[in-house]
Amino acid sequence: MALVVQKFGGTSVANIERIRNVAQRVAKTYDQGNDVVVILSAMSGVTDSLISLAQQAAEDPDKRELDALLATGEQTTITLLAMMLISMGYKAQSMLGHQIEVVTDSDYGNARIIEINSKRLQQLLEKKNIVVVAGFQGYDMKGNITTLGRGGSDTSGVAIAAALKADVCEIYTDVDGVYTADPNICPKARKLKTITYDEMLNMASLGAKVLQIRSVGFAKKYNIPVHVRSSFNEEEGTMVVSEDSGMEQLIVSGVTHDKKQARVTLTKVPDQPGIAAKVFSPISEAGIIVDMIIQNTRKEGKTDMTFTVPKGDYKRALEISKKVAQQVGAEEVLGDNNIAMVSVIGVGMKNHSGVASVMFNTLARENINIMMIGTSEIRISCVIEEKYTELAVRVLHTAFGLDAEE
Amino acid sequence: MALVVQKFGGTSVANIERIRNVAQRVAKTYDQGNDVVVILSAMSGVTDSLISLAQQAAEDPDKRELDALLATGEQTTITLLAMMLISMGYKAQSMLGHQIEVVTDSDYGNARIIEINSKRLQQLLEKKNIVVVAGFQGYDMKGNITTLGRGGSDTSGVAIAAALKADVCEIYTDVDGVYTADPNICPKARKLKTITYDEMLNMASLGAKVLQIRSVGFAKKYNIPVHVRSSFNEEEGTMVVSEDSGMEQLIVSGVTHDKKQARVTLTKVPDQPGIAAKVFSPISEAGIIVDMIIQNTRKEGKTDMTFTVPKGDYKRALEISKKVAQQVGAEEVLGDNNIAMVSVIGVGMKNHSGVASVMFNTLARENINIMMIGTSEIRISCVIEEKYTELAVRVLHTAFGLDAEE
Repeated sequence: MALVVQKFGGTSVANIERIRNVAQRVAKTYDQGNDVVVILSAMSGVTDSLISLAQQAAEDPDKRELDALLATGEQTTITLLAMMLISMGYKAQSMLGHQIEVVTDSDYGNARIIEINSKRLQQLLEKKNIVVVAGFQGYDMKGNITTLGRGGSDTSGVAIAAALKADVCEIYTDVDGVYTADPNICPKARKLKTITYDEMLNMASLGAKVLQIRSVGFAKKYNIPVHVRSSFNEEEGTMVVSEDSGMEQLIVSGVTHDKKQARVTLTKVPDQPGIAAKVFSPISEAGIIVDMIIQNTRKEGKTDMTFTVPKGDYKRALEISKKVAQQVGAEEVLGDNNIAMVSVIGVGMKNHSGVASVMFNTLARENINIMMIGTSEIRISCVIEEKYTELAVRVLHTAFGLDAEE
Repeated sequence: MALVVQKFGGTSVANIERIRNVAQRVAKTYDQGNDVVVILSAMSGVTDSLISLAQQAAEDPDKRELDALLATGEQTTITLLAMMLISMGYKAQSMLGHQIEVVTDSDYGNARIIEINSKRLQQLLEKKNIVVVAGFQGYDMKGNITTLGRGGSDTSGVAIAAALKADVCEIYTDVDGVYTADPNICPKARKLKTITYDEMLNMASLGAKVLQIRSVGFAKKYNIPVHVRSSFNEEEGTMVVSEDSGMEQLIVSGVTHDKKQARVTLTKVPDQPGIAAKVFSPISEAGIIVDMIIQNTRKEGKTDMTFTVPKGDYKRALEISKKVAQQVGAEEVLGDNNIAMVSVIGVGMKNHSGVASVMFNTLARENINIMMIGTSEIRISCVIEEKYTELAVRVLHTAFGLDAEE
């Protein structure tokens, strides 16, 4: 007897048969006496096809129009699921973003949820409806359709769970939980039973693409337990919870890797106040997202500045940096496209020194050179040569005692 | 300097190239100094694919959900057209049914427009936007998405033209106007420059599928000039106008045919008050639409009742009629699936006797047997054997002086 929000991703609704599978799972949860709200993504591949259609229509499609186009993907899956549930004898209704009043700002393509009017949802639940909500979409104050960005359906799910004060938000996907590392490159990786919001936030932003990062922030803010699990089996997945929930105490919970970054370095930049702004403003104005930034103070009032950007923006970032280098009087611009970032993450490391030295020593033993280092409270990241990625993940996984028992 | 509503059907927006063609035509109208509102259908074939998808999801898809699914078709075309116009340098915005507040009743799949809030449209036009509106869709008082039935985009176009008091509603389609008969079977058919709303109403309901019949009713009610023309050339099409608009005075404006009906006859029905209700109530309760009904009084208190139904409902209508025949004590039920209806239509016939006799004599000369006759103020229809359809249309076309000059 709980209020359960279930979110199914694109691979879980990829075709009619899989949607039928979802219908059965939803029905089972409902039959157990729960109130159920379902959030769906578009069929996998559909959003990309729509984007490609838009690009045939216009080189740089208007963002308002693109959002209204993309919103059709979820509209399709929710109506199909609702039809199935109704034909199975359940009361069900599909609801679009504007119908349940998911109000967002007007930042098309990457809109942020301002509020959700939970009244309409509650009325439907009181009448024992299974409510099937379109993920990824909302509308702004002027009634324009907006979308929440890649993976936005996760955020829809968690936000609706928060608005309804749901007991749990189940995120169904094509993996069966959160792993200590990517099982494809680390055969000894194992599924975590629990993980904290903060660890998950670091995981999500570092290449473990299980949950959209914003959804985790939302879950943390409203303390919504998130259950990440597979839509293809009945196994328990991973619970994402707050720290005090009596979890297994690991120092490091996972090792992640990210091959999607490239590195740019400006050498011998005059080290004076305001120089960082001069360097990074043109990059950010070009819409390029900078991840890690490292600056070493050097002698003679000169410093080296290194930062990472998405590989897709590498060339543009280099070009802009060369102009900037001239303007600020830097010596030269170096770049490297063949890098990867490996990170170890764990709330446990807050209270344990020595995690960094274990990490550096482990990489050193394999002759893996560390090009950049970045840290946060619960994370240490190293930039290394791309070719060592898999090796680095495996040896770190072992070094921090994460390997599954044979 | 006029307010022009342009509606483009499914074949006119069948793919990106054709939508580009539409964009150019719309831009041209705008460049001539007009305010332009564009109404689009879904790409041809898309609505059918969506229906088939729904039928894979549920044998008898829930109507509310089906409408929300079908509405995605128009959402796709309007956003693509708006993107194109914007990329061509125009101000444009797509608008969905609920965004311009096309309020309908809740008769899903066949909803009727109650009102349109023209304010939002007018604001957009004042700011010199080209407004691209989704045809076929509206929403009911509760915010549910509704659709207006097959060809509903025509009705959307005319209704929006009426709400805005537009100067003209141009209906772009894959034919270049309204013809005196179907050119495929009557090579001498010619395009009409003008036709009255009433004639068009009769044409539309009798198998000349140029305009959805409800759209013509709307146009007549609000006296909106409708210009039916081709989206594939620049030629003038046919203007649908009220009678007093100084038109060419033809006695008969067109010959139509309809092969989609079947005939059912109950013989020797006891001729007593209430008998017609007993016969037709079960048919109508089964959702079967009866078109023509003929009843001849016969001797000995018995009568024959004949009616036509869509061919797709023929078997069911026969079965129901057999039960009814037993209940009311009719002799037997006869049926015929191989019939067609040919009609001559024209406001001119109101004031001219002799149209009926010309029609009957013309058919008689070709040895075409007339099985049923029905008339209205501006129409005479005869049911004949299906195999004579084309011949009948041609000889009537000639007999009423409609043939194009060689």
